[in-house]
Amino acid sequence: MEITAGKLLQSINSPDDLKQLDKAQLHQVCDELRQYIIDVVSVHGGHFAASLGVVELSVALHYVYNTPYDQLVWDVGHQAYGHKILTGRRDIFPTNRKYQGISGFPKRSESEYDTFGVGHSSTSISAALGMSIAAKYKGEDRKAVAIIGDGSMTAGMAFEAMNHAGVSDSDMLIILNDNCMSIDQNVGALKEYLTDITVSPTYNKFKDDVWNALGKLPVGKSITRAMGHKLADSLKGMISSSSNFFESLKIRYFGPIDGHNITNLVDTLKELKKIAGPKILHIVTTKGKGYALAEKDQTKWHAPGLFDKISGEIYKKKFDLPQPPKYQDVFGETIIELAQQNDRIMGVTPAMPTGCSLKPMMEQMPARAFDVGICEQHAATFSAGLATQGMRVYCNIYSSFMQRAFDQVVHDIALQKLPVILCLDRAGLVGEDGPTHHGAYDIAYFRCIPNMIISAPMNEVELRNLMYTAQLDSNTHPFVIRYPRGNGVMADWRKPFEAIEIGKGRKLKDGNDVAVLSIGHPGNFVTAAIREAKNAGIDVAHYDMRFVKPLDEALLHEVFQKHTKVITVEDGTVAGGFGSAVLEFMAKHSYHAHVKIMGIPDTVVEHGTLKELHRACGYDAEAILENIKIMVENKVSVSVVR
Amino acid sequence: MEITAGKLLQSINSPDDLKQLDKAQLHQVCDELRQYIIDVVSVHGGHFAASLGVVELSVALHYVYNTPYDQLVWDVGHQAYGHKILTGRRDIFPTNRKYQGISGFPKRSESEYDTFGVGHSSTSISAALGMSIAAKYKGEDRKAVAIIGDGSMTAGMAFEAMNHAGVSDSDMLIILNDNCMSIDQNVGALKEYLTDITVSPTYNKFKDDVWNALGKLPVGKSITRAMGHKLADSLKGMISSSSNFFESLKIRYFGPIDGHNITNLVDTLKELKKIAGPKILHIVTTKGKGYALAEKDQTKWHAPGLFDKISGEIYKKKFDLPQPPKYQDVFGETIIELAQQNDRIMGVTPAMPTGCSLKPMMEQMPARAFDVGICEQHAATFSAGLATQGMRVYCNIYSSFMQRAFDQVVHDIALQKLPVILCLDRAGLVGEDGPTHHGAYDIAYFRCIPNMIISAPMNEVELRNLMYTAQLDSNTHPFVIRYPRGNGVMADWRKPFEAIEIGKGRKLKDGNDVAVLSIGHPGNFVTAAIREAKNAGIDVAHYDMRFVKPLDEALLHEVFQKHTKVITVEDGTVAGGFGSAVLEFMAKHSYHAHVKIMGIPDTVVEHGTLKELHRACGYDAEAILENIKIMVENKVSVSVVR
Repeated sequence: MEITAGKLLQSINSPDDLKQLDKAQLHQVCDELRQYIIDVVSVHGGHFAASLGVVELSVALHYVYNTPYDQLVWDVGHQAYGHKILTGRRDIFPTNRKYQGISGFPKRSESEYDTFGVGHSSTSISAALGMSIAAKYKGEDRKAVAIIGDGSMTAGMAFEAMNHAGVSDSDMLIILNDNCMSIDQNVGALKEYLTDITVSPTYNKFKDDVWNALGKLPVGKSITRAMGHKLADSLKGMISSSSNFFESLKIRYFGPIDGHNITNLVDTLKELKKIAGPKILHIVTTKGKGYALAEKDQTKWHAPGLFDKISGEIYKKKFDLPQPPKYQDVFGETIIELAQQNDRIMGVTPAMPTGCSLKPMMEQMPARAFDVGICEQHAATFSAGLATQGMRVYCNIYSSFMQRAFDQVVHDIALQKLPVILCLDRAGLVGEDGPTHHGAYDIAYFRCIPNMIISAPMNEVELRNLMYTAQLDSNTHPFVIRYPRGNGVMADWRKPFEAIEIGKGRKLKDGNDVAVLSIGHPGNFVTAAIREAKNAGIDVAHYDMRFVKPLDEALLHEVFQKHTKVITVEDGTVAGGFGSAVLEFMAKHSYHAHVKIMGIPDTVVEHGTLKELHRACGYDAEAILENIKIMVENKVSVSVVR
Repeated sequence: MEITAGKLLQSINSPDDLKQLDKAQLHQVCDELRQYIIDVVSVHGGHFAASLGVVELSVALHYVYNTPYDQLVWDVGHQAYGHKILTGRRDIFPTNRKYQGISGFPKRSESEYDTFGVGHSSTSISAALGMSIAAKYKGEDRKAVAIIGDGSMTAGMAFEAMNHAGVSDSDMLIILNDNCMSIDQNVGALKEYLTDITVSPTYNKFKDDVWNALGKLPVGKSITRAMGHKLADSLKGMISSSSNFFESLKIRYFGPIDGHNITNLVDTLKELKKIAGPKILHIVTTKGKGYALAEKDQTKWHAPGLFDKISGEIYKKKFDLPQPPKYQDVFGETIIELAQQNDRIMGVTPAMPTGCSLKPMMEQMPARAFDVGICEQHAATFSAGLATQGMRVYCNIYSSFMQRAFDQVVHDIALQKLPVILCLDRAGLVGEDGPTHHGAYDIAYFRCIPNMIISAPMNEVELRNLMYTAQLDSNTHPFVIRYPRGNGVMADWRKPFEAIEIGKGRKLKDGNDVAVLSIGHPGNFVTAAIREAKNAGIDVAHYDMRFVKPLDEALLHEVFQKHTKVITVEDGTVAGGFGSAVLEFMAKHSYHAHVKIMGIPDTVVEHGTLKELHRACGYDAEAILENIKIMVENKVSVSVVR
């Protein structure tokens, strides 16, 4: 089904076209842009509510600024659909997040309008400051604008950047897009502070002033010089003294203003363009704006999947059989079950209560489960602090976001050998979110750290049992449990807990021709491959290693005493990962064998469905089967090693 | 030479003894504590100025709080010498930072008074918040206090923790020890804000009030109830409305007060103990207080080495021959030389301008070299932002601190393939600073990331040439150059630049019995070992690989076609490091050989001299020689691999 953009939007092939329009026409552009996003996302999927919230801002920025010479940096970037559509990608927007289609995030290789690749939060101010300072150094008059949400503003990195920006002579503009949301409701002191400002009388007075000055002009009538001055005065009147959080950081503060008033936004941005030095414009928007259901339940409509745009029915994927649960839900249910048995258990998430399914525990046990905001660093060290008091903390952080707390895990958890339980959701490839979100590196980046236990369950019961094992008194180490995005493999997974001996794998199947060692969920691909191999007359042994660290050395001795053809399979990078650990074992014990390491290649893996990516990366069942066959057929003779 | 503590300090074997003293005696305790620190550090070395600055605070905290039941968390911890001396470690304090002596930082395994291991900055608020919330959950009335400097306060992690603390019901106290310093002068907007507060009339009025109420009481006279109330009123009067940075974060703000007035500090802390909720006390101190030279040049006296405490002469180490330069100084000189040739070059350091020797460039080229504060995350992404504009940025971060910017390197530099040059000073073991500061993991944690070039020079000329190569247009990748703390090996190192082919190692010596592959500075240990091996009649080949990534595959083919006995040597962890990369190459190309991987073992390596630690870790020249011999003698026959 062809989706057609509105008439005016059809005519906008670049911001240059947008700039030709009369300001009064921008309302229509916004309406059509909003509608086009609804039309496309309802049919093709993707992030939804965030882009609806910044339709006016996207139009205003490209209308006022000389993009791409002037540089916009969208924080996180899942709100940049409007930006993409306005900058030459309208017609390919339906390929959004699809394999070999455009990315769901701004991406430098995709467009010169995408000045900085994003995905993780809170990088925009640092990046824009770099652009701004470089421009100044080069004597260029280009502007840099960072657009950052109040959720992203909670991350320490944003603070670090402001601390620098405030004493720089950069002319950068920070736009604080305040919608009170991360994916879930934003939390923390700063959020409350921003709310205080927003409901203050000063804010409302300002809003009235601006409306009086400008907002009620007849559509199509351009702003006079006098009106411009009046607006400038209003704005200057809003410059607070040092009584403001941002002013404390030497960043001039303007606002808050209504982020859905396109005329006002345009005029305000025009004025701000003239003001030198670092400054922040606080705009208030509604996530999901213009789609009533999304405005009402913003978390649900953050990325709802496909839906009927008229009725608002979100389509469920259709399956012939009942589906196994998501791993995240097994986590969410199991932590409550364990916490009921062990009152020392606590849960921590940095702004992903829905995404990691900690939310039910937060509701049922509010004194024991914490959303700390987009603050992975704090989440890790806060967990360490709790652990010093004997708490058993499950700190749940997506694998790729765990990168943000790497030092804290090393310095505060691992070196001190505190038994914090790090649950890494979205470990391995994540699919449509692409390179910034793939959990490709955690095995490698944690394997090099002393004291760590690193485990990965092959199914729901293993996840439950690893979670159970980690909180036992017998565990005295930091304990990583990594598991993938998406569904497990078991219908009947609510089994009684059983402790797993730390560092113990299990032999799933004996075999004579080749041995396959797998870690975590991809073990299921191996099982499928082995079934096919059997049909081809190949007898494959399969070991589910369960632990990357410590390795089950007894099991590995068994493997290498029997096998000289070994394949390792992991849902992580092949550089320094599980396979590499097996090679280190071999070197240490002077085993010699042909080893094929299968996993995520040492390249940037783009976005697509999990199936497409597992195929492209060459470690789905088919690829494993192929490698089994190659290895069996390979009769290369190897010289005796002296 | 025995160093004797003052008479009163002699009697203090734990904070319980301190609490027995009359408040008026605390002046003497402070004097003696300060003197003892001067006496010991001048003879035994260590951090100096920071501990002098918090003598009064250390005494006041242990006097007022019920330690160790109440919990103090010292941020960074190099200022905690007074704390250590007061908590049972007076007599072993001369073993500070020595091999198998006490740590230069608080350390949980060392004392129950050390509630949280530190070393890196800005972890204290997160940790103390965890302690505080756990205590509340357990129904315990223990207090938690985080003591953090204004330098550490610039790191985003501290902000994240305050954002959480402000909306928690924790009773924690944050003490902001404001001395305007990191190791170098503190920088950034927050620092200026704090200075604004400190010089404000309100501050001075408050100071006067408190002095009038308390400060001028005759020594020995205890505070009356009325005076207590008056002080409390003064304090409450200082509670700003939301007009204060910290109050914006919902943390009640008190101060600033003079951090060297022991009586005032004690009284203030007593009052604050009674106040519920999260709160911050801003104290103003002088780093180096009480030692005039240190007060005057605080950076020089941060950790001056051994000195004559009377004359203030800092002893130079005595050598028979002129010493090669420090690697850091080769960096500092070379970046200026390159920047003079290439106007796109810039330099960035997170608060280590002296430590990494960027300072001369900052002075000579202020528009091109930046100290961004203790903000590694921002440093990395700011560098990425500069790089998008064509700048060639040398971002210099100590290896262990680079852990703090791991996500930013992955997400903002590597995935985008921006050619930022990451200079990792203090890579490998660092000696006396110990586990938190060893740069043990960088090869492993960067090797798993796509697009990275990872190199390590074996000497000064290689460092210069790698720096030269990295900024050439022909380099299109993120480029890591890791080099160790301390001196290089060359007297005559100022050679003209020569480009090094990326991914090319070099054969230093042919040999028939064993091949040793080294990366970076430890190649010099190998050279020494090979010299000895030759005397023992063993003919060893030596390859200086220069690049961990990409590996020089041509050179490795040469090695493994000729050799079946191979040793790898690196100044990094053996788990997932350079040796592991060599094993991956072997697996990929089906080479079989005996390989011994030498490097930092996969355990927590404690502090000591570099020599002691290289010995303990088993990769000094002697250990390499030993392994060469073992390998040559090892005639194990290995079965044919089919």
